[in-house]
Amino acid sequence: MSVKNLIFLVLLLFIPVSLAAHYLEWGELVVFITAGLAILPLAAWMGTATEEIAVVVGPSLGGLLNATFGNATELIIALVALNAGFVNVVKASITGSIIGNLLLVMGLSMLLGGLRHKEQTFQPIVARVNASAMNLAVIAILLPTAMQITSTGIGEQTIQNFSVAVAIVLILVYALTLLFSMKTHSYLYDVGMVEVEEEEISHKKPNLWLWSGVLLVCTLFVALESEMLVDSLEVATSQLGLTALFTGVIIVPIVGNAAEHATAVTVAMKDKMDLSLSVAVGSSMQIALFVAPVLVIAGWVLGQPMDLNFQPFELVAVAVSVLIANSISSDGKSNWLEGTLLLAAYTVLGIAFYFHPIIEGIG
Amino acid sequence: MSVKNLIFLVLLLFIPVSLAAHYLEWGELVVFITAGLAILPLAAWMGTATEEIAVVVGPSLGGLLNATFGNATELIIALVALNAGFVNVVKASITGSIIGNLLLVMGLSMLLGGLRHKEQTFQPIVARVNASAMNLAVIAILLPTAMQITSTGIGEQTIQNFSVAVAIVLILVYALTLLFSMKTHSYLYDVGMVEVEEEEISHKKPNLWLWSGVLLVCTLFVALESEMLVDSLEVATSQLGLTALFTGVIIVPIVGNAAEHATAVTVAMKDKMDLSLSVAVGSSMQIALFVAPVLVIAGWVLGQPMDLNFQPFELVAVAVSVLIANSISSDGKSNWLEGTLLLAAYTVLGIAFYFHPIIEGIG
Amino acid sequence: MSVKNLIFLVLLLFIPVSLAAHYLEWGELVVFITAGLAILPLAAWMGTATEEIAVVVGPSLGGLLNATFGNATELIIALVALNAGFVNVVKASITGSIIGNLLLVMGLSMLLGGLRHKEQTFQPIVARVNASAMNLAVIAILLPTAMQITSTGIGEQTIQNFSVAVAIVLILVYALTLLFSMKTHSYLYDVGMVEVEEEEISHKKPNLWLWSGVLLVCTLFVALESEMLVDSLEVATSQLGLTALFTGVIIVPIVGNAAEHATAVTVAMKDKMDLSLSVAVGSSMQIALFVAPVLVIAGWVLGQPMDLNFQPFELVAVAVSVLIANSISSDGKSNWLEGTLLLAAYTVLGIAFYFHPIIEGIG
Repeated sequence: MSVKNLIFLVLLLFIPVSLAAHYLEWGELVVFITAGLAILPLAAWMGTATEEIAVVVGPSLGGLLNATFGNATELIIALVALNAGFVNVVKASITGSIIGNLLLVMGLSMLLGGLRHKEQTFQPIVARVNASAMNLAVIAILLPTAMQITSTGIGEQTIQNFSVAVAIVLILVYALTLLFSMKTHSYLYDVGMVEVEEEEISHKKPNLWLWSGVLLVCTLFVALESEMLVDSLEVATSQLGLTALFTGVIIVPIVGNAAEHATAVTVAMKDKMDLSLSVAVGSSMQIALFVAPVLVIAGWVLGQPMDLNFQPFELVAVAVSVLIANSISSDGKSNWLEGTLLLAAYTVLGIAFYFHPIIEGIG
Repeated sequence: MSVKNLIFLVLLLFIPVSLAAHYLEWGELVVFITAGLAILPLAAWMGTATEEIAVVVGPSLGGLLNATFGNATELIIALVALNAGFVNVVKASITGSIIGNLLLVMGLSMLLGGLRHKEQTFQPIVARVNASAMNLAVIAILLPTAMQITSTGIGEQTIQNFSVAVAIVLILVYALTLLFSMKTHSYLYDVGMVEVEEEEISHKKPNLWLWSGVLLVCTLFVALESEMLVDSLEVATSQLGLTALFTGVIIVPIVGNAAEHATAVTVAMKDKMDLSLSVAVGSSMQIALFVAPVLVIAGWVLGQPMDLNFQPFELVAVAVSVLIANSISSDGKSNWLEGTLLLAAYTVLGIAFYFHPIIEGIG
Repeated sequence: MSVKNLIFLVLLLFIPVSLAAHYLEWGELVVFITAGLAILPLAAWMGTATEEIAVVVGPSLGGLLNATFGNATELIIALVALNAGFVNVVKASITGSIIGNLLLVMGLSMLLGGLRHKEQTFQPIVARVNASAMNLAVIAILLPTAMQITSTGIGEQTIQNFSVAVAIVLILVYALTLLFSMKTHSYLYDVGMVEVEEEEISHKKPNLWLWSGVLLVCTLFVALESEMLVDSLEVATSQLGLTALFTGVIIVPIVGNAAEHATAVTVAMKDKMDLSLSVAVGSSMQIALFVAPVLVIAGWVLGQPMDLNFQPFELVAVAVSVLIANSISSDGKSNWLEGTLLLAAYTVLGIAFYFHPIIEGIG
């Protein structure tokens, strides 16, 4: 058994612990921390289950599955938070996920990979297509904020309508991206896919029913733990002296994306930088093209005022992250210093969000 | 006769129709639409005439002619609108032309070209020089806006003076760009020129007097139709429920640039992406380095308060367009998805301008 | 004796002249100009002395010396100005140095180099690492300003604390950059170093005591002249009709960086563009990663309210400079037009700072 699996098994113990903390009322802070830890192995197993099922159902349907459930943990946490009315935390977690993938995940991958290997190279073809799609998506989800900032007396309803329109365009673009990567230009992605399979999936034919069951059970438990995480969030974070903005931008995305983080760093240390960057950039792209638009539409369905009007400083932070990530990844080479630069950028932004005065509340 | 020419002949019928609509008072909306349609074939013929004359007078003077009359239609519409006092529409049409060339024209070219050819490549040398000049020019024309936004209590006269100073620098840069492309480094541009000639120009020696006459007549008719277009603009667009900003940013540039749009898309479908991008980026560059500065100086001469102080959201839109276009074109390859991404960006910006509340009027 | 050295000897005469002007009270303007001119040769000799000492003490310690004293003149002027309470001038000189290196120095190098050599190429490896570090650093020092702009009612103390935190991160990053360039990846920098040595340093073993003495004496004189420059700054610039912002952004950096400017342009004309860009980008990087953070910490020690909260338009100007410099240098080629574009950008920004209304005073 690998060290990774061992850690996951231990973390699984936090499921009963978090339930006990919740029902025996050990305090919101304990619930918050244990629920957060319990989500980590569940998210990892959801990922494995999705990939095993993808192998059985074939590349087309499997690709669709992967594309839809790739950020499932995050989507579930966000939906639970949205339903509880924590609109600002949900918005912050969207920008936080983008920043986290581009700076923290890519930075750790380049740093730890670079400490083992003097210089690492990656083929920028797939990364470029993803990067362009991501640039577009990131810009699109920030446009309502830009509109709000650059005009006076714009109505909330206008921002809401514009956000829904943007969301629909982005979901269409996402569908076209899938068509591109799975049908018309799938050959561009073949190398990466083979690596994923070698890396992650056993060579026996997986059992469809077994893994569907695992996926279902894990999803239910993630939903349950997310419920406890979100319920305890307000009290726990204020006990820790953290603002809603900091919690949404830094804490929630780390919990929601931990599994991808682990994958990206692990493969980077094995000198598979293509795959590692693909995970980081692909995940950012999925957040911006799929998760964020789904949340806007879900907010409309749930009657929550969920739009794409972020804090102006979130806009600055995302723009900065995209610029630095593009600047560092565009030459197809990486080393430990470039990883450090990304992590330094993440640290500085983290400090900024820590110092940023609370303007609005959690909801 | 090609399909293109047939369409142009049919569109030519809108010249008498628009005149009838104007003098028989069929309503502003009919005048606006028919005058707009009548301009399309005239603009195309002006382009052809300019190129034929350029062949006769030789490369140096011909290049200068092309560079000066390349955006003549747009310049004429803008001058007529400026003279009528529609300063905000003129400003909006400048940003709209840049956005339209970078997103709509480049996007349509990459999409339609990419549907025929799996992957298209282009030599980025000329594109790069143009892109750098365009980046500079775009930034320069946005600086007065940035100055206005980032300071309090700046006087109108200061912005006006700064705009004129920027305009003079830009026209000097434009002259140096022509010197570069026609004298000191003309060899870089040779490939593209040959293609233009093969593409657009018949192989017989053109008749200078014939084409000069065509150019003169078309220019007069464009001016006439622009007059009717501008006169009917205010009433017609408000009947259509459109704001001055939307009309200036989206409608006017489509009418003014239609001929270049058609050229860029046609050659892209013939897999001549170098030429296609050259038209799109070159046209943006010409707008920013030549048309905009000329309009500022014309405004000063005409006594109209024409400066380079745009709506802040226009600044955002142009910056976004430049970033996305650079991101997509920098690898020297294109496919249908990249075209779709550019069109999606244009769509989202179009929606934004549609929703954007009117702050100032048409003038 | 080279022309350069002759010019320096003549400029040396301004040391006694400036002292006379100061003590015989010939007027603030005379003191300001003569002190500024006197600093130029002193800065050049400090540079030479540092490099000679670096040869004696060996590459590791020598690299550290170069890295620390590379912008010594600028640091001394800034410290003197900071001590005199001219906080806004000091801040403006930081942004001005970055802009000046990226646009003025790089632009002059590409223009003058390009007039002699049709097309110049440079290896972008070292430049890229520096550019990424510089991008990060520039963004980091601008974040407090972005935070201030994007929020309402943020306290001065918060900005101050955040600035100190950013400064500490940047100094750590600077130390890691040195570790990278001198230890773990020194082979990347070998070519450049050899060129520097051939270019700048005589082949005899330099005398450590002699050059240490030169360094000490020059440093003392620079400090003395800076004192006079700063004392006369307020009156002299207002006599010239210049604002504190313009003086800080344009005048002070030209005086402080003149020696590097001369080096970068000279080697560009010898077609050593790698070295030339290395000086320009490296100097910007050093300002952002070392000089600016040191000044923040010095301000804290001296009890001056020195933070990283710049004028919003300075943020725009720096962002614009970084974008244009990246756009022009990213293809590894340059020509006279690209140099002209950089200089045009510098000119336009200079005009903007000239027109920019004074918001705050000199301190």
